[in-house]
Amino acid sequence: MSDNPTAAVLIIGDEILSGRTQDTNTSYIARMLGSQGIDLKEVRIVGDKEAEVVAALNALRFRYTYVFTTGGIGPTHDDITADAVAKAFGVGIDYHPDVLAMLGARYKPGEFNEMRKRMARIPLGAELVRNTASVAPGIHIGNVYVMAGVPAIMRAMMEDILPGLRRGQVVHSATVEACVAEGRVAEALMKIQQDFAELALGSYPYYREDGFGVQLVARGRDAQKVEEAAQAIEKMLRAEGVHPIRLKS
Amino acid sequence: MSDNPTAAVLIIGDEILSGRTQDTNTSYIARMLGSQGIDLKEVRIVGDKEAEVVAALNALRFRYTYVFTTGGIGPTHDDITADAVAKAFGVGIDYHPDVLAMLGARYKPGEFNEMRKRMARIPLGAELVRNTASVAPGIHIGNVYVMAGVPAIMRAMMEDILPGLRRGQVVHSATVEACVAEGRVAEALMKIQQDFAELALGSYPYYREDGFGVQLVARGRDAQKVEEAAQAIEKMLRAEGVHPIRLKS
Repeated sequence: MSDNPTAAVLIIGDEILSGRTQDTNTSYIARMLGSQGIDLKEVRIVGDKEAEVVAALNALRFRYTYVFTTGGIGPTHDDITADAVAKAFGVGIDYHPDVLAMLGARYKPGEFNEMRKRMARIPLGAELVRNTASVAPGIHIGNVYVMAGVPAIMRAMMEDILPGLRRGQVVHSATVEACVAEGRVAEALMKIQQDFAELALGSYPYYREDGFGVQLVARGRDAQKVEEAAQAIEKMLRAEGVHPIRLKS
Repeated sequence: MSDNPTAAVLIIGDEILSGRTQDTNTSYIARMLGSQGIDLKEVRIVGDKEAEVVAALNALRFRYTYVFTTGGIGPTHDDITADAVAKAFGVGIDYHPDVLAMLGARYKPGEFNEMRKRMARIPLGAELVRNTASVAPGIHIGNVYVMAGVPAIMRAMMEDILPGLRRGQVVHSATVEACVAEGRVAEALMKIQQDFAELALGSYPYYREDGFGVQLVARGRDAQKVEEAAQAIEKMLRAEGVHPIRLKS
């Protein structure tokens, strides 16, 4: 399990920190990484400030197998990610001839202005992340993947990135829902956690229009153990007089 | 502006990192802090691991005026936040008599079990954060506010917290939307940014069913300057032959 690849996500953008935009990239990347058996360990969100991006990137890239960033690679003045990545790696940055050619072919004569050319500025030594949703590429340098912030483009970039990542053992999960206060079954759940020390059992209360309850989730790399734990949870709930509902998870 | 209070958010929970749950607490807290003129500068998401929470908390609490955490204060074994906070501050933790009394009054005889009593364990020297949505309180220690992860409870806790925070000068914003590629107006936008150096101008492209375009946002503490920048953006768009739409923001 210690051999499993790990990852961090770095979301770059004032619009997330101001509450203007709801980030949805994190959960998408998390699920994509999960499908490859890569553990997302940490997420950071910072603003459009070069020093903040450089510091976060250097803190994360030495600690985890992979770092995925989103945001700040467009043509406008507030798009500072490529420069920050170059600075974090201590390398130069310059117009990449392939990207200049790709972008040049995309725009009509006279439309390929200086600001749009900014999207061709790639840190030296980096590779390109192609995508089917836009022409401007992402960036792959060292263990860092730099993606767009627009969800549709980010997702298309993840498609290009995923096959090249080292895979780990996938984490399986099983979810049992019940109309019961989590505090009533907390002790019994803890005992099941002790019986299945290699799994992580989580308890997630919910409050909905139709009442309250809890989702009990077993997660781990041994699918059979996860299933056994889910069955132990179901048995425990029945013993408490509560009807368990197995959810797809 | 440098005197303005700053803040970080620390989201605690495996369920966010696995992609199982979409975090919405960050954007809510961001907007609440914004209403008080407090700048959210950084967000971190870590799993239910004490060492991770302690490290993140200590990194953030010395750097920002306030830190707000969500998650991990319930009755189950995976609720480790109170212990992590005590450890980060180097203080003990014990059952708080007021919280024991509050919780004891909430449950029927025999229902107030040992696991539920865990919710009364409060770091020594901390104050309680009350809320109208549940009995178990949040925690206020030093410059750190510890809240529930369930959004409805977190929001009720923020209501208790907000009046006690130091206020700053509120950031105003104006948003102008236009059906134009951001690259076409990027240079003109950069010039407006140079004219309004005390503001932050952001460019946020969108891709919707009805077409693509961009939202140009001016943000800053001087409402008049923000309005002037928005008008400069509108004028610039018209000069480019594009119809500007002022959004409520």
